[in-house]
Amino acid sequence: MTHRLLIKNVSVAQMADEGAGYDLLSDAALLVEGDRIAWVGPMAEVDPAPTDAEDIDGEGGLLTPALIDCHTHIVHGGNRAREFEMRLQGASYEEVARAGGGIVSTVTATRDTPEAELLAQALTRADALIAEGVTTVEVKSGYGLDRDTELKMLRVARAIEQARPLRVVTSFLGAHAAPKGMDADAYIDEVCIPALRAAHAEGLVDAVDGFCEGIAFTPAQIARVFDAAQALGLPVKLHSDQLSNLGGTPLAARYGALSVDHVEYSGEADAQAMADAGSVATLLPGAFYTLHETQKPPVDAFRAHGVPMAVATDWNPGSSPMGSVLLAMNMACTLFGLTPAEALAGATRNAARALGLDDCGVIATGKRADLALWDVETPAELSYRIGINSLKLRIFGGQTCH
Amino acid sequence: MTHRLLIKNVSVAQMADEGAGYDLLSDAALLVEGDRIAWVGPMAEVDPAPTDAEDIDGEGGLLTPALIDCHTHIVHGGNRAREFEMRLQGASYEEVARAGGGIVSTVTATRDTPEAELLAQALTRADALIAEGVTTVEVKSGYGLDRDTELKMLRVARAIEQARPLRVVTSFLGAHAAPKGMDADAYIDEVCIPALRAAHAEGLVDAVDGFCEGIAFTPAQIARVFDAAQALGLPVKLHSDQLSNLGGTPLAARYGALSVDHVEYSGEADAQAMADAGSVATLLPGAFYTLHETQKPPVDAFRAHGVPMAVATDWNPGSSPMGSVLLAMNMACTLFGLTPAEALAGATRNAARALGLDDCGVIATGKRADLALWDVETPAELSYRIGINSLKLRIFGGQTCH
Ligand SMILES: [Zn+2]
Ligand SMILES: [Zn+2]
Repeated sequence: MTHRLLIKNVSVAQMADEGAGYDLLSDAALLVEGDRIAWVGPMAEVDPAPTDAEDIDGEGGLLTPALIDCHTHIVHGGNRAREFEMRLQGASYEEVARAGGGIVSTVTATRDTPEAELLAQALTRADALIAEGVTTVEVKSGYGLDRDTELKMLRVARAIEQARPLRVVTSFLGAHAAPKGMDADAYIDEVCIPALRAAHAEGLVDAVDGFCEGIAFTPAQIARVFDAAQALGLPVKLHSDQLSNLGGTPLAARYGALSVDHVEYSGEADAQAMADAGSVATLLPGAFYTLHETQKPPVDAFRAHGVPMAVATDWNPGSSPMGSVLLAMNMACTLFGLTPAEALAGATRNAARALGLDDCGVIATGKRADLALWDVETPAELSYRIGINSLKLRIFGGQTCH
Repeated sequence: MTHRLLIKNVSVAQMADEGAGYDLLSDAALLVEGDRIAWVGPMAEVDPAPTDAEDIDGEGGLLTPALIDCHTHIVHGGNRAREFEMRLQGASYEEVARAGGGIVSTVTATRDTPEAELLAQALTRADALIAEGVTTVEVKSGYGLDRDTELKMLRVARAIEQARPLRVVTSFLGAHAAPKGMDADAYIDEVCIPALRAAHAEGLVDAVDGFCEGIAFTPAQIARVFDAAQALGLPVKLHSDQLSNLGGTPLAARYGALSVDHVEYSGEADAQAMADAGSVATLLPGAFYTLHETQKPPVDAFRAHGVPMAVATDWNPGSSPMGSVLLAMNMACTLFGLTPAEALAGATRNAARALGLDDCGVIATGKRADLALWDVETPAELSYRIGINSLKLRIFGGQTCH
């Protein structure tokens, strides 16, 4: 028989309305059947007769769609605490690089870490996200920069899903950086694209990502990766306009990108291109904060053009060693001026959209029962609190596995 | 018989050296006897013969003094999420005030919340701090602004210590703001100072605090409170130079203040006065972050004059709804430029000093066995990680109660 779960005495932030609010039902209840939401409505309409459904008393808490972290690099070896410390002790970027710092150190550590150990470390990070109500996490490759390690990273990402009650969506990010000493064009054509094809053949790739930036790849190089993705029938997304505007965003839009990420240096025309393509703008305030950036993403232009905004951790060892979606939501408000409702939509409805998922991210009949119950009085508290986790219960596919 | 606990296979950041480092022992062990540290030294010197001591294998983790949050307002009613939301929706400070926002709303909520409920809420906050290895927390009054509520807040603060394995140090902060509609001088003389005497008579006051600022009290008004404290034999501390420099810091130094807190607008002469008085500079980056401040505390002047720097959450519902000392440490590095070693000293050795405690905050023979064991490779990771709690074990007075 189908498992039924009735959650009573809650406020429900449905987040289903594309508007700016929470789509809030007060004094409400929600019925789960199997792994789906079967009904949501006022407490007064709950049948008072006993049913076969398991009962949960929400005690006046807030029920939201479970959180979705739609941009992470949680599979990686090593950490860059030493580099963080050197910089604060006054070392220049050059001195840090000479001491083996920067992305090179993460690439070396990721290549050198055995698959099982890489998984163990990734699971610790996944557990931190699960503890704050995350049920779906995107995980990128991009610290291998050789075929074997890129595939190893993606296999580890897939293995997370086997080891934890968590849904994993992978992005192939071979075009993250050129390996030390290798020509960027040669890397793209001879390593990155063949690695993408090999990863796809193993069923390891849900989307294809790239990094378009002066320190990474040009739009022309990214376009070759996207052509390969298109030929494989894979959707694309792009790290774009983080430190400068090289024209990556209209390129991504031309390929119908699911999302364009960072976007601090995007302008009005970029917002228009994203709106036309239906691309989500994924805001990553953890990197902005860590790198002491001052150029903020054009939030008003995204609002004006109707570009959906997602919010994610960008959890990575270099520019955003941040393990909290709730903190990313607070930073999106405090640093970028999002409203708390926009921040919550950014970690639920719009995060799902940034991953091309239409079965989660909102509370509505027929959607997956991926839910989070919080000990807060109002949904704004989720973004208002800093470094505080108010989760009472996480429901993943209808199961109350915490 | 005295309980003995041997912690093996750890690195130990002793933090006992007044210098800038971690005072690190690698491959070390630590022996607890009763509630005190009996010995710390190399693993090679641990007697291999079995003893009566309980054994803990630290598995290569890092042992530090337990964290100390030396500036909090965790006893308070209500929250200010609505105000946070209104501001992000574009409301002016005036509109927020007209809607009942600002400190007035917290004063009203704190007055209206029964003592038992105030305690329950404070315990939830205390639990969040305990979960990241805090063993000592300072708690201020200051949301009553009448005698009964100020005493109620301090009784709740004392009750936390009875309900949790946590040491609480109280500060009487009657001079936080003048209640709405009351003359500030009359409030100080007729309410604040009599309330201080009454609280002291009940044994509720460990130190006396004030807020010297344009929106709060003048140095002359604070001086009257400090005179009353001195007459009662109580040490003082001060919220000073947060938004402007009114001369609060040299005033606090004249009274030998344990700490001067916020200090963003302090200058060279203030640093000199603090050094001469032996006052700690308590940095509160959560408020700086939340209020979008740009004036940073004069860290270089504090270093040059040898002013010890503490780091704390300032957990309060208005300007710093932040429940993580680890995040305060990261912010102290990222926003104020502290080194990770300074940040850790700020939440251990110097935080103890800011509270006038000399039995904790460092790892040394004879000190209290208030310890934290972390799943990190290097102490810098504690400050490098953002919104990530790596605590493995907390030891409070020699007891491994988590
Ligand atoms: Zn990224
Ligand atoms: Zn304060």
